[in-house]
Amino acid sequence: MKPNEQNTAEGILFTDMYQLTMAQVYYRTGMQEKLVQFDHYFRSYPDYGTHKAGYCINAGLEWLLDWMNRARFGQSDLDYLRSLKTRTGTQMFAEDFLGWLLKYGDFSALSLWAIPEGRVVHPNEPLTVVRGPLAMAQILETSLLNHLNFQTLIATKAARIREIGRGQILLEFGLRRGHSTGANAGTRAALIGGADFSSNVGISAVLGYPPKGTHAHSMVQLFISLGMSELDAFQAYAEIYPDDCTLLVDTLDTLASGIPNAIKTFEELRRKGHKPVGVRLDSGDLAYLSIQSAIQLDAAGFNDVSIVLSNNLDELVIWQVITQIAQEAPRYGVDADQLIRRLVYGVGTRLITSWGEPALGGVYKLVAVCDQGSWRPAIKISESLSKTPNPGDKRLWRVYDRREKATADLISLDEEDPRQMDTIHLRHPTDHTKSRVLRVNSTLEIEPLLVEILREGQRVYPVQDIEALRHQRQADVDRLDPGVRRIMNPHIYHVSLTQKLWDLKQALIQSSLSGGPNEVA
Amino acid sequence: MKPNEQNTAEGILFTDMYQLTMAQVYYRTGMQEKLVQFDHYFRSYPDYGTHKAGYCINAGLEWLLDWMNRARFGQSDLDYLRSLKTRTGTQMFAEDFLGWLLKYGDFSALSLWAIPEGRVVHPNEPLTVVRGPLAMAQILETSLLNHLNFQTLIATKAARIREIGRGQILLEFGLRRGHSTGANAGTRAALIGGADFSSNVGISAVLGYPPKGTHAHSMVQLFISLGMSELDAFQAYAEIYPDDCTLLVDTLDTLASGIPNAIKTFEELRRKGHKPVGVRLDSGDLAYLSIQSAIQLDAAGFNDVSIVLSNNLDELVIWQVITQIAQEAPRYGVDADQLIRRLVYGVGTRLITSWGEPALGGVYKLVAVCDQGSWRPAIKISESLSKTPNPGDKRLWRVYDRREKATADLISLDEEDPRQMDTIHLRHPTDHTKSRVLRVNSTLEIEPLLVEILREGQRVYPVQDIEALRHQRQADVDRLDPGVRRIMNPHIYHVSLTQKLWDLKQALIQSSLSGGPNEVA
Repeated sequence: MKPNEQNTAEGILFTDMYQLTMAQVYYRTGMQEKLVQFDHYFRSYPDYGTHKAGYCINAGLEWLLDWMNRARFGQSDLDYLRSLKTRTGTQMFAEDFLGWLLKYGDFSALSLWAIPEGRVVHPNEPLTVVRGPLAMAQILETSLLNHLNFQTLIATKAARIREIGRGQILLEFGLRRGHSTGANAGTRAALIGGADFSSNVGISAVLGYPPKGTHAHSMVQLFISLGMSELDAFQAYAEIYPDDCTLLVDTLDTLASGIPNAIKTFEELRRKGHKPVGVRLDSGDLAYLSIQSAIQLDAAGFNDVSIVLSNNLDELVIWQVITQIAQEAPRYGVDADQLIRRLVYGVGTRLITSWGEPALGGVYKLVAVCDQGSWRPAIKISESLSKTPNPGDKRLWRVYDRREKATADLISLDEEDPRQMDTIHLRHPTDHTKSRVLRVNSTLEIEPLLVEILREGQRVYPVQDIEALRHQRQADVDRLDPGVRRIMNPHIYHVSLTQKLWDLKQALIQSSLSGGPNEVA
Repeated sequence: MKPNEQNTAEGILFTDMYQLTMAQVYYRTGMQEKLVQFDHYFRSYPDYGTHKAGYCINAGLEWLLDWMNRARFGQSDLDYLRSLKTRTGTQMFAEDFLGWLLKYGDFSALSLWAIPEGRVVHPNEPLTVVRGPLAMAQILETSLLNHLNFQTLIATKAARIREIGRGQILLEFGLRRGHSTGANAGTRAALIGGADFSSNVGISAVLGYPPKGTHAHSMVQLFISLGMSELDAFQAYAEIYPDDCTLLVDTLDTLASGIPNAIKTFEELRRKGHKPVGVRLDSGDLAYLSIQSAIQLDAAGFNDVSIVLSNNLDELVIWQVITQIAQEAPRYGVDADQLIRRLVYGVGTRLITSWGEPALGGVYKLVAVCDQGSWRPAIKISESLSKTPNPGDKRLWRVYDRREKATADLISLDEEDPRQMDTIHLRHPTDHTKSRVLRVNSTLEIEPLLVEILREGQRVYPVQDIEALRHQRQADVDRLDPGVRRIMNPHIYHVSLTQKLWDLKQALIQSSLSGGPNEVA
């Protein structure tokens, strides 16, 4: 795509056509500036087939805000919309509507609350709340979902991989298999969720993390094709990067050629006073090869050289590698824990695409409308009760127990503050038979989760750097129950409604079923 | 991401770090301008778990060429590279190398051959061939794979969905679930592969296809929340789009409310001389609801109103819907074929993410090196024989039989032209026991597939518009055997080597195994 085309494709027209056709309906019926509220949330954790997430890591907000800040209808956008024709050849979008878009077609009138990036989040709770004039709040939907769905998906995958990798260094390697330029957003999300560094140079530059990488098989091949050897290739590399020398050892034969040649190269570096960094294994039985490589490296005195693993890794493969090492290493006289602590994971395809579940089903639902100065909750009930959004303006709380573990997230009406209650009736969001009662003085803390980000277009929450988000993520994950953290069959974390919100939802459902307007609020 | 950051992240630094560390090794050893050749190919068809592709649709080249045309090392890129430090705090990239990058760090010296976009392609055949100075040919790898892997993946998925949908109109709806801005590349690929239109406004503007869309559930909800009705919402929409009126009928109750209200709205349009376009079903049992909707619509005389289906569609779901309609419709006195011919498919998440297989494993392998004026084939053999690249400079041919069906793709040495042979010995690329002999005069045509695109950076092949690519794709798919086209357990299409290429590959493998340089060529 050419740069001018990219401006068109990634600006305000980065949206679905129906947002614009609806906006014109709202304009024509005089509703375009009616105040409304939309909630953004997802309905279920990513399900990777053989395993499933028990929590997600929120991400993507900062890039959405950057987009909102610059996206607005300009003359070239309007020229394009003017060119669109109906089936009878007339103009699809009328001039008065286009004039309105030119004047009011930006996001400067919207207010936005959100759970900050890097935080642990769960299904059916509002992650982002948008309030403002109808037409632009509606047009925002597509881009908001695009930005937040994907980054939350990838941050979640990265957190899982980090978890199973016991916190060892995790490198994001996916640029070549990512979805076009979306790979950059994926790298950002991976860093928030659990990756330490990335091979992607450009986005590492933008985010301030040094990019990581050594050499490819092609470098060894090249030397060999020219009549030289793997050892020549290693030595050439080591000469230029004597203090950052990680060598890819599987181009020919890992144990018979790659590791012995790496050791010769490392010995020369050591003689010259340098400290070799690592070897990388990119094929074969990674557990077996790790053990055998460690034996050779240790025998040569390179006990602290890292062993970088790559090749279609994901949480299950890493789990398998660690399990196999734990079982097999002792048979070879190798300390399994010590070996596991020198591993580094390079994860490409299966992190950047969230292998097994390449999309998060986040949605953006109308929950309230302001009519003649008073807010009415909105509800949609055609599908199953579990898909019915929670109506109206709400607040979100996280309840910590005395073990400093998060025990439930609680969605309340805007007017409620559970910190002021004696007991909280936690209602299951859809199953009326399920509830529990919590005594507030038995809790450690009740933390509000939604933060005001934009007040009528003005930023009122500071930009967080990635490092702060990483700390937030780790702190939140540490406060999860181990049952929720496990990568298979996790314990289901409770997201509950207060009794008042539950009552409102039931009343609205009854009212909608009987066909009347929503006048219960 | 902010615009200046985007320039950094999507320019020449849209690559992996190891490309740059290797480039410096090549510069330091005086090899940076040595002529080399890389082949790009994928090793296996996308495997979606329960089903698998029997062919792929090539896509992404034009956007790669746009990127190559503008990506070059500029001062800000060099400033960033200059800032990168080794573990001992010295500069990672030396000034002389940075100076070389500033002077020669673009793709203007590369030549490129490729199979054009829109063509049917198969595993292990060169889709793209890059020849030129080593350092920049190596740096290109990551971006080339990023652009071509993803678009080929999505074009392939779109072709499958079109195939199972019997060529009915296919709408791409995935922007909200795509991977950030990568969704735009996905839409382009979907249009090449089989989608007719997209809901994505911006990329539709760029590519010259009118974007499609009607209204969301939220519009109906809004009217209801304000004390009006679904019918009011439909009528407001119809008034503004009287000749383009497609109504979403499942916000409340599809058969009891949505369809009857749509019919009332359509009757009014008809009275005023307009032709209603369609209804959209986005939840529930789409086959059952299609039949029942058709019965109601037909009874009111709206036999030619389209029924647009959406909600997590993919090739299997569409297959199920069509199968169920074929079985059930007659029981209700509905002509199944007629009903199937009025269906339109809106496919979002599962097209834009290639659900089941969200990445294509395309690779970029060194196959030849020019040393002192003569080309040496390069080979890499550490992994299984099936992963060993075909060495050297090659040509690619498609053989058509007398039925006008493609019967095999044939990879030959550069010097070979199978059109000049009497018989062709088709060797299986890895299994030495498998081969077949083809008499050239029994074939209809032997077509060369690789086209020269760039000659030392100069474009020598015209830009194809999407419409031309769509025609090419359809023509190629039509020339596939039905067994190859089927969506489950497809027949394996033959990709063969000529005897001479087979002999070269075997000789190189033997030579590499015995440790010698590749001097067989």
